[in-house]
Amino acid sequence: MNIKITGTGCYIPSEKRPNSDFLRHEFYDADGVPFDLPNETIIKKFEAITGISERRYANQELNTSDIAFEAAENAIKDSGIDPETLDYIIVAHNLGNVNHNSIQGDFIPCLAARVKHRLNISNPKCVAYDLIFGCPGWVEGLIQAQAFIRAGMADKCLVIGAEILSRITDKHDRDAMIFSDGAGATVVERCEEDCGILSFESASYTQNEVGYLFYGNSYNKSLSQNIRYIKMHGRKIYEFACTHVPQAMKACLDKSGISIDDVSKIFIHQANEKMDTAIIKRFYRLYQKPVPTGIMPMNIHKMGNSSVATIPTLLDMVKKGNIEKQSIHKGDVIIFASVGAGMNINAVVYKC
Amino acid sequence: MNIKITGTGCYIPSEKRPNSDFLRHEFYDADGVPFDLPNETIIKKFEAITGISERRYANQELNTSDIAFEAAENAIKDSGIDPETLDYIIVAHNLGNVNHNSIQGDFIPCLAARVKHRLNISNPKCVAYDLIFGCPGWVEGLIQAQAFIRAGMADKCLVIGAEILSRITDKHDRDAMIFSDGAGATVVERCEEDCGILSFESASYTQNEVGYLFYGNSYNKSLSQNIRYIKMHGRKIYEFACTHVPQAMKACLDKSGISIDDVSKIFIHQANEKMDTAIIKRFYRLYQKPVPTGIMPMNIHKMGNSSVATIPTLLDMVKKGNIEKQSIHKGDVIIFASVGAGMNINAVVYKC
Repeated sequence: MNIKITGTGCYIPSEKRPNSDFLRHEFYDADGVPFDLPNETIIKKFEAITGISERRYANQELNTSDIAFEAAENAIKDSGIDPETLDYIIVAHNLGNVNHNSIQGDFIPCLAARVKHRLNISNPKCVAYDLIFGCPGWVEGLIQAQAFIRAGMADKCLVIGAEILSRITDKHDRDAMIFSDGAGATVVERCEEDCGILSFESASYTQNEVGYLFYGNSYNKSLSQNIRYIKMHGRKIYEFACTHVPQAMKACLDKSGISIDDVSKIFIHQANEKMDTAIIKRFYRLYQKPVPTGIMPMNIHKMGNSSVATIPTLLDMVKKGNIEKQSIHKGDVIIFASVGAGMNINAVVYKC
Repeated sequence: MNIKITGTGCYIPSEKRPNSDFLRHEFYDADGVPFDLPNETIIKKFEAITGISERRYANQELNTSDIAFEAAENAIKDSGIDPETLDYIIVAHNLGNVNHNSIQGDFIPCLAARVKHRLNISNPKCVAYDLIFGCPGWVEGLIQAQAFIRAGMADKCLVIGAEILSRITDKHDRDAMIFSDGAGATVVERCEEDCGILSFESASYTQNEVGYLFYGNSYNKSLSQNIRYIKMHGRKIYEFACTHVPQAMKACLDKSGISIDDVSKIFIHQANEKMDTAIIKRFYRLYQKPVPTGIMPMNIHKMGNSSVATIPTLLDMVKKGNIEKQSIHKGDVIIFASVGAGMNINAVVYKC
């Protein structure tokens, strides 16, 4: 028995926000001190590191469960399944539904219940829950779906990652430029073919790392100290990720029995281009191999970092020929790898 | 192979709030109209229906992850396990951490990561995630833990339900009197004995029921319409629960092969005494049996409804002899059953 992704879908918000949109922002450092540099320089530096030149924001009237539904509908259509046959709907997110011009996250009921409602599924045995695991939430949802299938509790699961980060970013923090909105979904099914999930790894580093991503006040100290935004210790995350993600990927690949030479693609969480490139380089260095050209499809340049949504969105785009010079084919071995708040890390080795 | 609860623990906030605390509240109906009745009458009626005479609120300086940690530490001590051997920490909640005098839920990082941090567990293979499933979150966490054990992914899991509802209730809504704060935890382990989880049922009703529990504005229409509180359609929930919970419990019990006569105790989500009593009555009616005396331990009178925390707290109190005339013994068959936002329902038949 194997576990296979039989459909993918995504929702890419229509509102494009180029870096130039941030030219008029007043950026402060963590101590509330304005930067000595002009915004042009700050933005140029930002783009050189992260690779992000543009990001997508969801329209004001849409919420996270709405875009999760759009991605889900596309994935279900792609898989060809009858949605009534789904045993689980798993929605990974980290903010809940946040209305436009609000800062309150709402997940009563859970977003998965709202997605199920919009999909108009009547079968009560289709269990809908939300999974909170930082940016690696969608990969962890895939791991949980395979657990339910292996335990004989499910045949078909819908795993979604959706986030509207734009509503919870501090516009006075340069890191606000990283975050974007999006949703990606996959249908996961039991199958008897020689393909699917070959191995997985999952880990939570919380002793020293628990506060690397957190909710904090605006860097503009004149604003309400009772409102908090998503904040990160970028350098600490960078160092942590470059050490631990390659190790987790290696542990996962070695467990699968697949040779490093047989890996076709690596779908890594679109966090930051420089960091992702460094992770892949260190991963190949663990095998004393150079990084093969084109191994790492990326969409961060135009999509930004949409947290849990980056990997399923990227997978859908590559599968459907929407990333230049990137494709996957039957029999290809690919790796999913992610890192985020917790700090959590995970990886999955998958045969198409 | 079976799956057994080897330790329980809870955290009961020290701040007692009797019904008389609500005498000075200004209560409005959903349309913002003040009630024609004096508060004494409203409160008397409330107590007659729900059974609640007192509830517990967490101290201002504590947050949900803090009380989750306290319950977890007690459960670990009770089980005698080395916390470093835990494979999963699952925290069920519905609000995140909400600071005193704030309305913003925060779960970056997830509460399970914060609990793991406070438990000082260094093993990165102990995976910490949050589960959002309405009030039935703790029971669903138990079901997920058994899935991981059955799938060969885990031997030991810590399953916690924790909530501080007092920070997100509308003091102008009579339903605010229902909600309270608390945390309960259990250690769940693979075992070879003839005991543990015998069967489970889980369901999500979302077509007509998705909005029965929701975030909405204060009933005091003069307050900010940008701040939302937990709200419910009480009558609809009551009717839904009385129909569907007994059915789920029956499906679960029949699946276990256990006779209704061999059920020793039913631990039902402490939502509302009248509703819980009606559910149990209908459950026994499905077997054409009268309700046995003392079958349903309750702590709602002094504890209120602490959402995900009610069942594990009640279980811990009964196990440790803290509920008058209630006890469980080796070999007893018990049922856990819950209902809440989604609307979600679940049940577990368990042999002590």
